[in-house]
Amino acid sequence: MEIPLVEPVLKSNDRLAALNRQRLRQAGLFTINLISSPGAGKTTLLEKTIPLLRGLGRRSAVLEGDLFTTLDAERIERTETPVVQINTRGGCHLDAALVGEALEKLDLRALDYLWIENVGNLVCPAGYDLGEDLTVVVLSTPEGDDKPAKYTPAFLRAEAVVLTKLDLLSLSGMDVNRLRQTLRRINPQLELIPVCARTGEGMDRWIAYLEQQFQQRTAIDKPIPQTHHRGA
Amino acid sequence: MEIPLVEPVLKSNDRLAALNRQRLRQAGLFTINLISSPGAGKTTLLEKTIPLLRGLGRRSAVLEGDLFTTLDAERIERTETPVVQINTRGGCHLDAALVGEALEKLDLRALDYLWIENVGNLVCPAGYDLGEDLTVVVLSTPEGDDKPAKYTPAFLRAEAVVLTKLDLLSLSGMDVNRLRQTLRRINPQLELIPVCARTGEGMDRWIAYLEQQFQQRTAIDKPIPQTHHRGA
Repeated sequence: MEIPLVEPVLKSNDRLAALNRQRLRQAGLFTINLISSPGAGKTTLLEKTIPLLRGLGRRSAVLEGDLFTTLDAERIERTETPVVQINTRGGCHLDAALVGEALEKLDLRALDYLWIENVGNLVCPAGYDLGEDLTVVVLSTPEGDDKPAKYTPAFLRAEAVVLTKLDLLSLSGMDVNRLRQTLRRINPQLELIPVCARTGEGMDRWIAYLEQQFQQRTAIDKPIPQTHHRGA
Repeated sequence: MEIPLVEPVLKSNDRLAALNRQRLRQAGLFTINLISSPGAGKTTLLEKTIPLLRGLGRRSAVLEGDLFTTLDAERIERTETPVVQINTRGGCHLDAALVGEALEKLDLRALDYLWIENVGNLVCPAGYDLGEDLTVVVLSTPEGDDKPAKYTPAFLRAEAVVLTKLDLLSLSGMDVNRLRQTLRRINPQLELIPVCARTGEGMDRWIAYLEQQFQQRTAIDKPIPQTHHRGA
């Protein structure tokens, strides 16, 4: 029923997303958009990831998307991380305009990683570019291995899937091999990273993946040192 | 950004929902709209509930909301239950028009319970009346007890919350007392029914609740027998 508006809305969103992307890259930031169902563990993953990155000298900030509350933002604040709350007032996804406004409240030059925790919704956020470098779907083991087939757009948009709550795997009925096959069929480039934030299992691989992506992406935008080419 | 359209869309939806409701009640049906996050266990709950109702002589049919696939409809069909697939083609919720079209494909007079399994999304379906008698939120233990506070509209719309995956409770971090307090604060009339579809725990209370609601609602629309009033 929204068909007449969807095209112009998306076009305007894409324009604003491109502006966000330009601004974030110029500031040298690496930006990650986290998309998931409610309760898949996005906030918990951030609570564990940000201190590990801090140990490597990386400074994070978080934009917290939420319908009405500040519950998740309060959790992130406890990790002594700058956080900007974005309340959508019932809206089902973040958009580039909301993110652009939130960026005004951060000192971008003092940051390395910008995390955007989207509204908990595996459907609507998939349609909105926010200007991020990397889209990550957070999928928890109890949700089941059929989710990528049923909620395809999010998995098409993403570059990586973090499979959370590994400690519930044996009871969850999730078949990781079947999940891997489905992901390969839908989007062969997707990286699958199983973790358990509670026990720390798999967090080393997640951090290594982030750092690799961080260095690849930020290197593209930085002028390449010319030292070795002088004599050539 | 959709604000200019939301009012007329919702008004038109409410009109169509009222038509659905009239039609379903005239056919003597009791209709339940199931809303939840992806993977909370709506389909599994139906797979277990429908045969139990059949044991009481109640005939069910299911409308299966899904973005693109027929995966859940195939699961329901295996329980020898009439099922109509509604593919939203990426749309994030069912609406009364989609439900009205699907009703054409069922023999309503041959049914007692009509189940509507909404798209897995705890945000958008809350805004759309489908013509149901009862709205039920299915919440799974691993999603956490903060979800009613964060996704309030669904819990305001619902009359009952079925708390699924009780077998994961001890590992999930869900505090049922805290959940109960939050629900009481948001919507004091809400019934909380904890179940484990796998082990059958709590299913007796869920079936009893359904039958009580079924009898209350269908009694309202049936002409009240006048026998006892003749002599008065």
